[in-house]
Amino acid sequence: MSFFPASLENLIDKFAALPGIGRKSAQRLAFYLLSQSEDEAKSFAEAIIEAKSSVHCCKVCQNLTEGELCQICASDRRDRSIICVVSEPRDVLSIERGREYNGTYHVLHGALSPMSHIGPEDIKIKELLVRISQEDVEEVIMATNPDTEGEATAMYISRLLKPFNIKVTRLAYGIPVGSNLEFADDATLSRAIMGRTEI
Amino acid sequence: MSFFPASLENLIDKFAALPGIGRKSAQRLAFYLLSQSEDEAKSFAEAIIEAKSSVHCCKVCQNLTEGELCQICASDRRDRSIICVVSEPRDVLSIERGREYNGTYHVLHGALSPMSHIGPEDIKIKELLVRISQEDVEEVIMATNPDTEGEATAMYISRLLKPFNIKVTRLAYGIPVGSNLEFADDATLSRAIMGRTEI
Repeated sequence: MSFFPASLENLIDKFAALPGIGRKSAQRLAFYLLSQSEDEAKSFAEAIIEAKSSVHCCKVCQNLTEGELCQICASDRRDRSIICVVSEPRDVLSIERGREYNGTYHVLHGALSPMSHIGPEDIKIKELLVRISQEDVEEVIMATNPDTEGEATAMYISRLLKPFNIKVTRLAYGIPVGSNLEFADDATLSRAIMGRTEI
Repeated sequence: MSFFPASLENLIDKFAALPGIGRKSAQRLAFYLLSQSEDEAKSFAEAIIEAKSSVHCCKVCQNLTEGELCQICASDRRDRSIICVVSEPRDVLSIERGREYNGTYHVLHGALSPMSHIGPEDIKIKELLVRISQEDVEEVIMATNPDTEGEATAMYISRLLKPFNIKVTRLAYGIPVGSNLEFADDATLSRAIMGRTEI
């Protein structure tokens, strides 16, 4: 027997289906929304519909955008000879925050993962190859995550790019700036030593 | 400069405004919704509208319901001479789960909190008094949370109920069943000793 009205149970189910939201959190969120005014609840619902209907992938880099091209691809101040390949749209934001990179991006929307049945045709690899074969690209930076899936994806794509004869690079591994050697894990430390640079 | 399309930023803002959801979680939730099919996103939005428009307070106990009366107030198997007063609708669920209680409830929708400017007129105390003056109530169990606000609310209401000359009780404090004395805090232990019962 459920003690909540059916429509409230339904809303709780919807929240509980979101990643990282358990049953209790879903209840709390649903109760919170119900405690808001009619207008506020409505504007939440409209925000979902609006975002879903107007956001799609940039036809060049596959980043999320409302126009045909994303802001970065549409800008004439970005260096089109370098493409930074990332797994998710949020990774673009992370790299932009570093203010060091001025090239363009390519968002894969995932990483290869045989365990989760995600193969090369499930992420935007084909679009990357089409782009490289048509544009004048000099370097591709593989900025997928430094985990198993990200590494595998980087290796797979770098092999596909061999015939194009362009420079393929990977983000540097090492000690995070401002951190402490004491807290660095073994794998990071050994990569930091392998990748040491002259000062 | 924001790197996400405006409608996506708006959706992230909506999620970030929910309690316990930070900026990063809000991004993850918004991205997840965008990755779902049009139908699924739409049904999420509809669930919000539907719940908000059809759920309201039971006219007797103020619990959430879609009908005029909630399931418990509508049932003829519940003992109407006892009212269990709780702060939130979810507390009804918690007590029902115990399967010990067969009376009715009264949901305050909050607790007195001078710090958050929540006074007696902001929670459903008036409705409780009206109910007690009209129904044949023998006992009121104060089941507000055992924290400062919950205690204050219980004390405040029990004083208001004095003139009605009905029994006002409070949930028992003590060691949680199945736990260990070692892990009980001092306040709980001293309340457990004060409330000791003969065996």
